[in-house]
Amino acid sequence: MKKIEVRQYRGMRDFLPEQMRKREYVFSKIKKVFEAHGFEPLETPAIELWETLAGKYGEEGERLIYRFTDRGGREVGLRYDLTVPLARVVAQYQNQIIFPFKRYQMQPVWRADRPQKGRFREFYQCDVDIVGSKDMIADAEVLTVIYEALKDLGFKNFTIRVNNRKLLRSLALKVEAAEKEFDIARAIDKLDKKGKEGVKEELEKTGLEPDKIDFVLKIIDARQLDEVASLLEGVEGTEEGIEELRELFNLTESYGIPPSFISFDMSLARGLDYYTGPIFETVVKEPRIGSITGGGRYDNLIGIFAGRQIPATGTSLGVERIITVMDELNMFPSSIGQKTQALVAHFRDTVEEAFKIASMLRKEAITAEVFPAVKSLRAQLGYASDKGIPFVVIAGEELKEGKVAIKNLRTGHQELVPLDQLSQYLKKNTLQR
Amino acid sequence: MKKIEVRQYRGMRDFLPEQMRKREYVFSKIKKVFEAHGFEPLETPAIELWETLAGKYGEEGERLIYRFTDRGGREVGLRYDLTVPLARVVAQYQNQIIFPFKRYQMQPVWRADRPQKGRFREFYQCDVDIVGSKDMIADAEVLTVIYEALKDLGFKNFTIRVNNRKLLRSLALKVEAAEKEFDIARAIDKLDKKGKEGVKEELEKTGLEPDKIDFVLKIIDARQLDEVASLLEGVEGTEEGIEELRELFNLTESYGIPPSFISFDMSLARGLDYYTGPIFETVVKEPRIGSITGGGRYDNLIGIFAGRQIPATGTSLGVERIITVMDELNMFPSSIGQKTQALVAHFRDTVEEAFKIASMLRKEAITAEVFPAVKSLRAQLGYASDKGIPFVVIAGEELKEGKVAIKNLRTGHQELVPLDQLSQYLKKNTLQR
Repeated sequence: MKKIEVRQYRGMRDFLPEQMRKREYVFSKIKKVFEAHGFEPLETPAIELWETLAGKYGEEGERLIYRFTDRGGREVGLRYDLTVPLARVVAQYQNQIIFPFKRYQMQPVWRADRPQKGRFREFYQCDVDIVGSKDMIADAEVLTVIYEALKDLGFKNFTIRVNNRKLLRSLALKVEAAEKEFDIARAIDKLDKKGKEGVKEELEKTGLEPDKIDFVLKIIDARQLDEVASLLEGVEGTEEGIEELRELFNLTESYGIPPSFISFDMSLARGLDYYTGPIFETVVKEPRIGSITGGGRYDNLIGIFAGRQIPATGTSLGVERIITVMDELNMFPSSIGQKTQALVAHFRDTVEEAFKIASMLRKEAITAEVFPAVKSLRAQLGYASDKGIPFVVIAGEELKEGKVAIKNLRTGHQELVPLDQLSQYLKKNTLQR
Repeated sequence: MKKIEVRQYRGMRDFLPEQMRKREYVFSKIKKVFEAHGFEPLETPAIELWETLAGKYGEEGERLIYRFTDRGGREVGLRYDLTVPLARVVAQYQNQIIFPFKRYQMQPVWRADRPQKGRFREFYQCDVDIVGSKDMIADAEVLTVIYEALKDLGFKNFTIRVNNRKLLRSLALKVEAAEKEFDIARAIDKLDKKGKEGVKEELEKTGLEPDKIDFVLKIIDARQLDEVASLLEGVEGTEEGIEELRELFNLTESYGIPPSFISFDMSLARGLDYYTGPIFETVVKEPRIGSITGGGRYDNLIGIFAGRQIPATGTSLGVERIITVMDELNMFPSSIGQKTQALVAHFRDTVEEAFKIASMLRKEAITAEVFPAVKSLRAQLGYASDKGIPFVVIAGEELKEGKVAIKNLRTGHQELVPLDQLSQYLKKNTLQR
């Protein structure tokens, strides 16, 4: 038989059972928090019309969309994020959706990026948003969900950095460069990666005057609302921006997030242009991996589709990074891989009995599998051991006396047990191990 | 604000929360059965290299693959089914996988088909396979999983039709048309859709002689193994084919499938060429919707990738059709939609208290949400009612006395409850409703 060379498209990953278990663990923990807060699931298709995607992600983003023409000549693209599809859905079903619409969505997205370590062309996003509320209550709910999800996953050291786009706008006004608002935001956004010198260079590129640049570089050190309030005093939008954050911080505290986990940070800018209010991202101290969540309020994006302003706020949880961090820090419980409690081994003439035994065990809520081929007992024990199955029930000669041998693969202990005591035996010993 | 016309690419669907709940219900029930039998999850990427997909689905199938070229000039295609990706994965990770490899996979696939009622361009497949066992034990496990999954979903009237490709091969030999084996199979496969006359026409197209056609038309009426055994007696492969099915039926009975749910059916052919042994599909009596599962043994497909023969058997569960049937027959429990137990309503100055109350309730494992905007009590009650939330906790004036009003939206009853008895009250009344 000639073998084809087996390859994958670059930037793609297969998830074998062991990885799947970890991913499912993370997804289900997060989902549970979402559900506890009344968020509901949504799924949208992988393929969207090109006109839906076009002009939403900036020039750089748009180049990364997988775009093609179908057989009927239709221009389409693959899902690039979960926010634009949400906006389309809200517009399309606005008479059917219950507002405020609290939805979560966990689906893969595709980016025609150059693959490199930790950067893939297919990855899951996990978004949670509230559509139809302009109040800080909604933003507070989003922050709370972030906090609770990370806590439940076992994260102990993280900071949710918060800023307000309204303050960044005030800053642009203050330095008399309103038209450069987004350029300044993008320059500030480079702080983590390029340091203050990098930000300075980026600001210089915008043509901002030196004293204005100095002002920007000074204000982004601010970690106190009062400081920014006084530096931008009297500028349009400052008061509102400060007030929103004060309210937000009060609400999150009422909701149970200790203030030490939330930090106002005037250097947080978030790259995307569509944010209009509070913005937030979460950083972990260890390992150095960038932010593990990112989001904010975007009151105008949905209006592009809906024809009327519908405010919204939400966040992405960077599930892929979260999984990477949890792997590196050994945060996964050891029990998540193992599901089958007993393998029923058999010989050529005891297969039917093995099936009956497995069926009986499953009725007693013990997950049991029959070795799915005729092989030596040794091969069957090896399979159980490789798969981490703790017990092997051997359907052998002793069946004539109504008994089976049970081998505990962890201790090596083996004993004969009457069939009618088998499930009880397994339950007892599973509990004890 | 100018509204863009909001449209979707044809053949795509959005799943709003209500539909998502139903889909998740079906997926999780099926998954549970898979897990109870020791199957493990696998996910593969949406985009595969064209060379992986090419030549695997027949001419007709291949035309339906979404195929495009990436920015780097790479020819790729979207996942068309879950079997070819499984074959690639097995070949690629053969030193890492534990054999027999029992995997399940639930992911969307894409087909550039003409959309029509019930036919979509994106739909989920749900596959369960055992790779690395040539024994009927594996096929019996697959049939058992089908039976148990359908039973658990509430199906009562269904038949798993079973045949063996080896018998169809014998039939081709018997009518002296070995080279037409697949054409004859495809002709027989048309029986459900086009009736016996249709099959006859298709057989005529293959150039088979009239008396041979008559023989084929006669044998496909067979529903007893003995009948086929005698009609094809002495032909190469007959004995093996019959013996396999006898063993299979014995095993499934040992595993607890009542024989009335399984039926040998010589008219079952399954369209795909890659089947080599037992083939099976499940039909429901009501509604008329075609098969809801389909699969079989394919001992040679994985070898194309792996360079050595690796036997395999498995099935697809037609989750989309299953959902459609369950919807039509009202098989979904009424409780699946409702998750939030209590909405905490509030007034402008009681938002922080509302957050505290919700937080307290969640600590008591009561899913609670705070209305995420400042609105009238009426609007908040309307939201709870629309979302099917049974209780509204009103954080109002009575907080001063340490009390809240609770409104039961099903009965309309409202009463004042001390805060420290709130969770107890909700638990008691939730149980009673």
